[in-house]
Amino acid sequence: MPVRMTDDALLTVLTNKATTLRIESIRATTEAGSGHPTSSTSAADIVATLFFSVMRYDPKKKKTQNNDRFILSKGHAAPLLYAAWAEAGLFDKHELLRLRTLDSDLEGHPTPRLSFVDVATGSLGQGLPAGVGMALNAKRLDQSPVRIYVLMGDGESVEGSVWEAVEVAQHYKLDNLCAIVDVNRLGQSDPTMLQHDMEAYRRRWSGFGWHAVVVDGHDIPALLAAFDEAAFTKDRPTVILARTLKGKGIPGVEDQPDWHGKPLKKEQAQKAIEELTRQIRQSAVQPEIRRPDWQPNGAKSVRPMPAPQYKPTDSVATREAFGAALLALGEANPLVVALDADVKNSTFTDKFGKRFPERFFENFIAEQNMVGATAGLAACGKIPFAATFACFLTRAYDFIRMAAISQSNIKLMGSHVGVSIGEDGPSQMGLEDIAMMAAQPDIVVLYPADAVSTHRLVELAAAHRGPVYIRTGRPKSPILYGNDEPFAIGGSKVVRQSQKDQLTIVAAGVTLFEALKAYDELKARGTAVRIIDLYSVAPIDRNTLIQSGQATGGRMLTVEDHYAHGGIGDAVLAAVGDQGFRVSKMAVREIPHSGKPEELVDRYGISARAIVETATKLLP
Amino acid sequence: MPVRMTDDALLTVLTNKATTLRIESIRATTEAGSGHPTSSTSAADIVATLFFSVMRYDPKKKKTQNNDRFILSKGHAAPLLYAAWAEAGLFDKHELLRLRTLDSDLEGHPTPRLSFVDVATGSLGQGLPAGVGMALNAKRLDQSPVRIYVLMGDGESVEGSVWEAVEVAQHYKLDNLCAIVDVNRLGQSDPTMLQHDMEAYRRRWSGFGWHAVVVDGHDIPALLAAFDEAAFTKDRPTVILARTLKGKGIPGVEDQPDWHGKPLKKEQAQKAIEELTRQIRQSAVQPEIRRPDWQPNGAKSVRPMPAPQYKPTDSVATREAFGAALLALGEANPLVVALDADVKNSTFTDKFGKRFPERFFENFIAEQNMVGATAGLAACGKIPFAATFACFLTRAYDFIRMAAISQSNIKLMGSHVGVSIGEDGPSQMGLEDIAMMAAQPDIVVLYPADAVSTHRLVELAAAHRGPVYIRTGRPKSPILYGNDEPFAIGGSKVVRQSQKDQLTIVAAGVTLFEALKAYDELKARGTAVRIIDLYSVAPIDRNTLIQSGQATGGRMLTVEDHYAHGGIGDAVLAAVGDQGFRVSKMAVREIPHSGKPEELVDRYGISARAIVETATKLLP
Repeated sequence: MPVRMTDDALLTVLTNKATTLRIESIRATTEAGSGHPTSSTSAADIVATLFFSVMRYDPKKKKTQNNDRFILSKGHAAPLLYAAWAEAGLFDKHELLRLRTLDSDLEGHPTPRLSFVDVATGSLGQGLPAGVGMALNAKRLDQSPVRIYVLMGDGESVEGSVWEAVEVAQHYKLDNLCAIVDVNRLGQSDPTMLQHDMEAYRRRWSGFGWHAVVVDGHDIPALLAAFDEAAFTKDRPTVILARTLKGKGIPGVEDQPDWHGKPLKKEQAQKAIEELTRQIRQSAVQPEIRRPDWQPNGAKSVRPMPAPQYKPTDSVATREAFGAALLALGEANPLVVALDADVKNSTFTDKFGKRFPERFFENFIAEQNMVGATAGLAACGKIPFAATFACFLTRAYDFIRMAAISQSNIKLMGSHVGVSIGEDGPSQMGLEDIAMMAAQPDIVVLYPADAVSTHRLVELAAAHRGPVYIRTGRPKSPILYGNDEPFAIGGSKVVRQSQKDQLTIVAAGVTLFEALKAYDELKARGTAVRIIDLYSVAPIDRNTLIQSGQATGGRMLTVEDHYAHGGIGDAVLAAVGDQGFRVSKMAVREIPHSGKPEELVDRYGISARAIVETATKLLP
Repeated sequence: MPVRMTDDALLTVLTNKATTLRIESIRATTEAGSGHPTSSTSAADIVATLFFSVMRYDPKKKKTQNNDRFILSKGHAAPLLYAAWAEAGLFDKHELLRLRTLDSDLEGHPTPRLSFVDVATGSLGQGLPAGVGMALNAKRLDQSPVRIYVLMGDGESVEGSVWEAVEVAQHYKLDNLCAIVDVNRLGQSDPTMLQHDMEAYRRRWSGFGWHAVVVDGHDIPALLAAFDEAAFTKDRPTVILARTLKGKGIPGVEDQPDWHGKPLKKEQAQKAIEELTRQIRQSAVQPEIRRPDWQPNGAKSVRPMPAPQYKPTDSVATREAFGAALLALGEANPLVVALDADVKNSTFTDKFGKRFPERFFENFIAEQNMVGATAGLAACGKIPFAATFACFLTRAYDFIRMAAISQSNIKLMGSHVGVSIGEDGPSQMGLEDIAMMAAQPDIVVLYPADAVSTHRLVELAAAHRGPVYIRTGRPKSPILYGNDEPFAIGGSKVVRQSQKDQLTIVAAGVTLFEALKAYDELKARGTAVRIIDLYSVAPIDRNTLIQSGQATGGRMLTVEDHYAHGGIGDAVLAAVGDQGFRVSKMAVREIPHSGKPEELVDRYGISARAIVETATKLLP
C-alpha cells in the first residue's frame, strides 16, 4: 500500500478530484443535450473520496474478485460515475463527451456493457439489493475482505426494495456493506418526503439495526472519517447519510428546484466550468488509488452433474424434481448457490439449504431483495438459483427486467403455476409468468413436464450464460422420459406422432399430460394427432413446430395452464405466424376460483375432455 | 350507540367470540383438507376484539362508505375472516364448511367476490398500501370519521411494500389508519427474522414515525386499550404490535414449527374443538356491534367531459394529452382522483394536481404503494388514475395482478414507452408493459397514437368499470383525428384503405406514424397497403382485423415499439390465429441502447424504412 499522504495534501487532492468530476459531469451533459448534472454534482465529493482514497481496486482489472465494489444505485448520476472511472485512468476523458450517443456505451444510465459496471441501474432502489448479494458473496462465500459501497439517492431511499435489503443485510450482519445516501433534498418533481431532516433518516436506518452516520456530504474530512467508521463497525452494515446540495458547485443552480435531469445551456455551462476550474488548487502530489492486497481464491473444480435416476413408475412434482436437481447440481458445482423467500419447503430448495447451509440464503418474504441479491451474486461469478412461487416473482418484475438489461447470469425458478395448484385460489397461481419472462429478449424460459426433463433443464440452466427462468408445477406428475433422454435449450419433443396425424397439439407441464390423455381418447375414436412437449418456450423450436404444422395440414392447437395472452400459445403463434397455419389456443381466460386441481383444470378449459372437444371441432 | 357493557361482561363475550372463531377456523380447514388454522387462531383475539367491540359497522351493509374498514392483509388467515363475518350475522355458519370448494366464494384467500372483501389479499404486503388508499379517502376526500384496520402477519411485515405504505401514511398523517401485526413468530418455512423481539419491531415502526404499541395479542383488555390509544392518537398512524402464538389454543400445535398451512386431522381437530368448547363461558349478554353514527356525503354531480379541442396542426405528446384530459375529466367528475410517484412533471399529472390538490396524492418513489393505494381508493368508490413511467409499473406488477383478481376499478397510465424515448436508455423504456397488462384477463389495454384519441380514451377509461391501462409516449406526435371522432374500448381505426390493398399493417402509438410514412412511400412505388390503428389492444377488434386480413390476401404485418413477446403482434396473431393468414411481426428484439429517438426507432427495426423493406418482401 502506498504511504498515506498528509491530511492537507489528501484534502487538496480529493477536493480537486471532486471539482474535476463536477466539471466533467457538466461538460458531458451539456454536450449531450440531456442528462443529470445536478444529481451528479451533489455526490461528487462522496465519489471522489471513495474512488481516490477509500476504495481498494485496480482500475485496469475492473471485475476481479479482489476489487472493492461500487454500485451507483442512483443511476441517473451516470456522468459522475463515468468521470470517476476516466479520472481513475480506465479510459480517455474525451470519451466522456460521447455520453448518451448511439455509438458509445456511456449510456444515459449505466449498464454492464461497460466493463466497470456490475449491474444496470436507473430503476431506483435496486443497487442495495445487488450490494447485499455482493456482500454475501465476499463475506460468506469468498471470505474475502472486499467491501461493497452503494451510492443511493434520497428520493430513492423510500423504495420498499431498499428496506428489504436493509433488513436482510442486517440479518446477515453484512459489515462489509456500506450504503451512502446522497441527501440532496430535491426529487424530480418536488422536494423529497424528508428533505434535509437528517435525524429522521437516522431514526429510520438505525431503527432497522444499521449503524447510521450523519455527515455533511461536501465535507471531505468528515466523509473520510465516516468511511473509516464504517470499515471498523463490526457485525452490522453502515449507512452514511450525507447531507448535500443538488447542483452543488453550479452557480445559480445549487439547491434550486426544477433542475432535475436538465443539462445546462452552453453559455451557463461554460461559466460554471470556469468558476469550478478556478477552485482547483495546485498540488504537488497525485492521488494514488489503493490497490487490494489479497488474492481471490483459486478456481474451484466443477464436476459434471450426474444423470437423473427416476423410475418409470415414479410420480414426482416438477418443483420437487427441481429441488433434487438443485441438490445434485450443488454437489457437482461449488459455484452454485441458492436463495428463497420463506417457501423453501414448497420449492424444495430446502434440500440444497440443508446440505449447503453456507451457500443458501433465506430472504424471508422479500422477493425484490432476493432477485436483486441474486443479480449481485451473479456479478461476482456465482451461479445463483432463486426460487419462490411463480406468482410472487411478479413482485420482483422490475428486478427481473433490470437483470435482463444486465444480461445477468441469474436462474429463477417459479413454482405453483396455474390453476392446477387448486384450493389456494388465484392469488397463489402463477398465470402470467411466461408473459412477463418471455417478454424480456434474453431470458430463457423452460417449462418441464416431468422429473427427468426438470433435472436436465436445471443442468442446462446452470451451463447457460445468461438469465434463465424455470417454471414448475405443484401436482405430482408421471415420468415421461428415460433418464438418458437428451434435452436442449431451444428444443422440443414430439412425444406422439404418426403418418396420419391431423392436428398438432402443443402443450407443456400439466397440460402435456392432459394432451396425452386426449391423444388416447382421440385415437380410440380413430383420430391421430401429434403431441409436442414445448419444454423450451423461449427460445422456441420453430423448425419442429413448422414441420409438425405442415405434417398436420396446417392445423395446430396449443393448451396451457397460463393466461391466454403472452403464454405458450402466443409463442407458438409468433413462431409459425407467417406460415398460413390455423392455430387455436386453449388457456385460462378468466380469474380462476379455488377448487380441486382437477376440477379447475376442467372448469378453465384445459383438460383432456376440453382438448378432445376442441380438437374434434378443428378436424377436417 | 349501545350502552357499553361492563368490563367483565365484555371480556367474557369477546373471549367467547375468539374461542368460537378458533373453533370455526379449525373445523372449516379440517373439513376442506387444506388451509391455515394456525395462522387463524393466532389472530383470533385481535379479530374478535375488532369485530365485536372496536369497529363501527353495519354487517348487513358491508360496503357502505360509513362502515369502518377491515383488511385481512395476511389473507391466508381467511378462515378467521369468514368465521368473523358469519359470527357478525352476515351469513349462516354452515357456509363455513364449504371453505375452498369450487361452489363457494369462501376461497383459500379472500377476494371481492365476497361482499365483505374490499381488496383481494393472499399476496403478502398488499393490505397496508390498500389501507393507505382507504385512509386517504376517509380523511382527505370524504372527511368522514371512518377508521381503517389492517391486520398483517409478522413474516409479511418485511415486504418492502409495507414500508412504502408506512412512509406515505406517515407523510399524510393518516391517524385514521391502524395496522396490527400478528407477531406469531413463525413463518412458513422458518422462524421469522425478528421472532418475538418486540422491541426490534417497535424500533422499526417508530423509527418511521408511527405510534407503536406493543401488546400481548391474546390479552383482550390490553388489545382494547391499544385500539383506544390508536383512536386517540392524532396526526400519525398507529401500529399495534401484538405478540401472539401461532396455533394458539390448539393443544400440541401452539407455538410449534412445521404447522404452517396444515389443517388438523379429523381426530385431532375434534379434540381441539372439544377443548376449546369447554373454555366457552356462560354469558348473560350478547355483544352488540357498534354501528356508525354518521352518514356518507351525498352523491356528487358528474358532468360529461368536454370534447377535445386540438387543431390539426398541433404537435402533442400523448403523455401530455393524457395530463390535459385528466384535468378536463377532473373538472367534470369529482370522483376522479390522481396519484403519481415523483414524475408528475413527466406524466403531466401535475396539471391535475395543481388544479385539485386535495384530490392528488404524491407517492414519492414508491410505486407499489401507489398502485395499492389506488386499489384502496377504488374500493371506496373513487375513480383513481395512477401514473408513472411504464417501465416502473413493472415494480408494482404483483399489485396490478392482485387488482385484476379484485376486478378493481383502477386506471393506470404508463408513459415513456419504447425505444422512442431516446437517450435515457433501456432502464427507462417501457417495453414489456403490454405483455404484463394484457396477460391479466380483465385489464383493458389502450394505446392512443395522438392527442385526440388520448383524450377520448381517458374518457372511456373513466366510464369503464374495471381496471384500465393507458400506454403513452414521450415524443410529440401529430394530430391524426378530428375532435369529434368516436372511439370505443375494443375498437380500432382503419386509417388508410383502398380496394387494391395487398397487405394490412397494424400499428399503434409512434409506429402508427412510421406506418403512415411507409404507406406514402409504398404508394409512391405503386403499392397499396391498409393501415390499422390498434388503439385498443385488449379487448381487440377481431372483426376488423379479420376483415382487413381477408381483404389483403391474408397478409398482415404488425409494428410496435415494444418487445416482440406479448405485445401488439401477439394480440393480433391470437385474434386471427385460426384464419390461416400469414402474419409477420416487427418489434424490438434486443436490449436497446441509448441514442436519439429516431436513431433508435430505425436501429431496432420499427421505422418507416424498415416497414417499407419488410412489406416489400411480404408482397406477392
